[in-house]
Amino acid sequence: MKPLKGAVLLGQSGGPTSVINASAAGVFITAIDSEHITDVYGAVHGIRGILNEEFYDMRKEDRRELELLKNTPSSSIGSVRYKLADPAKDDTDYKRLLEVFKKYNIRYFFYNGGNDSMDTANKINEFMKNSGWDMRVMGVPKTIDNDLNITDHSPGYGSAARYVATTFMELFHDATVYDIPQVTIVEVMGRHAGWLTAASQLAKELGQGPDLIYIPEQAFDIDTFNRRVKEVLAEKGKVLVAVSEGVQTADGKFIPEILGEIKRDSFGHAQLGGTASILASEVEKNLGIKVRAIEFSLMQRSAAHLASKVDVEEAYNAGKLAVEHAINGVSGKMVGFKRLSSKPYKMEYVLIPLTEAANTEQKVPLEWILPNGEGLTQEFVDYALPLIQGDGGVVYENGLPRFAKLKKVIAPKK
Amino acid sequence: MKPLKGAVLLGQSGGPTSVINASAAGVFITAIDSEHITDVYGAVHGIRGILNEEFYDMRKEDRRELELLKNTPSSSIGSVRYKLADPAKDDTDYKRLLEVFKKYNIRYFFYNGGNDSMDTANKINEFMKNSGWDMRVMGVPKTIDNDLNITDHSPGYGSAARYVATTFMELFHDATVYDIPQVTIVEVMGRHAGWLTAASQLAKELGQGPDLIYIPEQAFDIDTFNRRVKEVLAEKGKVLVAVSEGVQTADGKFIPEILGEIKRDSFGHAQLGGTASILASEVEKNLGIKVRAIEFSLMQRSAAHLASKVDVEEAYNAGKLAVEHAINGVSGKMVGFKRLSSKPYKMEYVLIPLTEAANTEQKVPLEWILPNGEGLTQEFVDYALPLIQGDGGVVYENGLPRFAKLKKVIAPKK
Repeated sequence: MKPLKGAVLLGQSGGPTSVINASAAGVFITAIDSEHITDVYGAVHGIRGILNEEFYDMRKEDRRELELLKNTPSSSIGSVRYKLADPAKDDTDYKRLLEVFKKYNIRYFFYNGGNDSMDTANKINEFMKNSGWDMRVMGVPKTIDNDLNITDHSPGYGSAARYVATTFMELFHDATVYDIPQVTIVEVMGRHAGWLTAASQLAKELGQGPDLIYIPEQAFDIDTFNRRVKEVLAEKGKVLVAVSEGVQTADGKFIPEILGEIKRDSFGHAQLGGTASILASEVEKNLGIKVRAIEFSLMQRSAAHLASKVDVEEAYNAGKLAVEHAINGVSGKMVGFKRLSSKPYKMEYVLIPLTEAANTEQKVPLEWILPNGEGLTQEFVDYALPLIQGDGGVVYENGLPRFAKLKKVIAPKK
Repeated sequence: MKPLKGAVLLGQSGGPTSVINASAAGVFITAIDSEHITDVYGAVHGIRGILNEEFYDMRKEDRRELELLKNTPSSSIGSVRYKLADPAKDDTDYKRLLEVFKKYNIRYFFYNGGNDSMDTANKINEFMKNSGWDMRVMGVPKTIDNDLNITDHSPGYGSAARYVATTFMELFHDATVYDIPQVTIVEVMGRHAGWLTAASQLAKELGQGPDLIYIPEQAFDIDTFNRRVKEVLAEKGKVLVAVSEGVQTADGKFIPEILGEIKRDSFGHAQLGGTASILASEVEKNLGIKVRAIEFSLMQRSAAHLASKVDVEEAYNAGKLAVEHAINGVSGKMVGFKRLSSKPYKMEYVLIPLTEAANTEQKVPLEWILPNGEGLTQEFVDYALPLIQGDGGVVYENGLPRFAKLKKVIAPKK
């Protein structure tokens, strides 16, 4: 298909990662350099920016700052958690999107996000196709949870995994320093998929990681957990535990749910957190010793200074390829990764229909998980290790990261 | 004075830092290379290792691993929190130390720690002097709290400050990403001195740090705090707060103390933590929005991957100089730092009597602190910035830090 002449629009959605802006850099720079693209917009806070006609004019940015976006964490143009209705039930928002797309001659829309965002992109693609507005809609994956379907992995995971493994190594040295019994329970993000917590296995492999690893794919049993902590403590005098915020008991209850109320976000997802501190109280009660609870909190998804080179490059290329494919006529697809080999790491970029990428969570295979919190198998290590390789390339000035400073020029309303 | 022929013993004490092992490397390598030193021991868990006659024979370690100690966080030979009695009241421990020193011909004792450790080193030095056992006792400073007296700063602070500033920059990008009101309260270590929390000013300077900074040097008023959060929220829509765990109200109450019980360690120090989450609940109650509490927890003192070059080098040199001075006859001193200028940074190593270094906490000068949580002055920035410069030099293997692997050969009992 021949290229459409028109504007490119990028929206960022969902929770931050270290490399979501690397994908943005890939989209913006490729679009700016393309002869087919008239304007390059960044939607201010994703879908909401489109509904509000609030766009940054990315052509007004300095090239160097766009390059620095590769190593700037989070969503530089603003993210959003906004769920579009099912268009069959309520197409108000879609009609508004169409109106705005026409007004600004937006012929290319890229949505950078996780499961929900791919679903959103898919709905927009379908609606625009049916409306007769000739445009191309592409998904660019990002999620530290690594739970997007079909794709081997997603941008954001490798860097977050590198943070988790590195930080566990450092915590191991800290948490084993005294000659007194010590139990440290560390909570890692992951509501339903345990990929990120599993990355602590990379530290465990080196003898500097958690003794016990618990992820949501396996039912969590509090009695077994208590027994295992007691056993490791008796054996080693110290226990370091990695636990996903989303571990659930066999009857599907989250740890905070057993004690308190759970808040839900606009997608209906449980807002967890507090899992480690609740388990710490449990162990304190049982063993009568002080237990430290640690949450990696927002650091695990924003620690750009620990981003992996592989992740930054792949994130950038995913954005770049989305633009190139769209110009060449592709629509309704997400740029994904297909692994050809792990040793050495070989990967090819593929196009995955948005319908397949969205709304199905890819979880850690059960056969990669050892029983009783013992950790993950060699298969997992072979899978994860290539993704954390290399330094992401943060530039330092005066001892601190030099993140991108965007001018954020608002495009004039049309 | 002429050098004593005999063994060197190093003890590590107190909470970990990123560079305590860099000082250990300085002591061990310098001692091993000295013609005057017969044996080089590491006390297993500080004073307790001496009382128990448990020493690692550091001559059995590979040189490369000793070099890697420079970038390995925490206390590789084990730390301890053990308070020696006042020898005037109970000299049991001191007699036992003397017995062990004689048995192993220990003529050089180095103690690496903070305030309490310098006090311990001082008591040991006095006792040994009075006992007639000819030996030299030197203090090597370390503390992320930066509260040791007389010295301009202490090893461990620069690296922890770099972690705090870098992480605040990254959190800033994360915590301002949505188009909804967001309040994020981050708790930084520091019981009585606010140096480490103040380092968040370095991020604030760059427009990527906390809006409000609270340190223990200034009385904390909950009403003013609530008002300021509300004001910043109204103005910016987001609020990022840095708060020392040790902030106290005008009548000397810690934040957790207002709500709950405080545990104390063996030195009688309050075990804090929970300050941020208590303040978060307070703001949630007042403003009716979700507030996130984050603790930098053990990460701020063990993130060797963010150690500053200046800090690693100074920590190493402090250990090295302690050995060199002791061999030349110095005893009862701590190696400290005297700043000659900040721009450019010029510093000279000095010897500070242990009596002066110990037990007086150096705090952030009141004139460097702006009112109402507005932050720190340029004087603070000029002070802190030189200390976070440069990359500490962690070696990476397979994407992860290559920390030292010691053989930990226990020296045969004599």
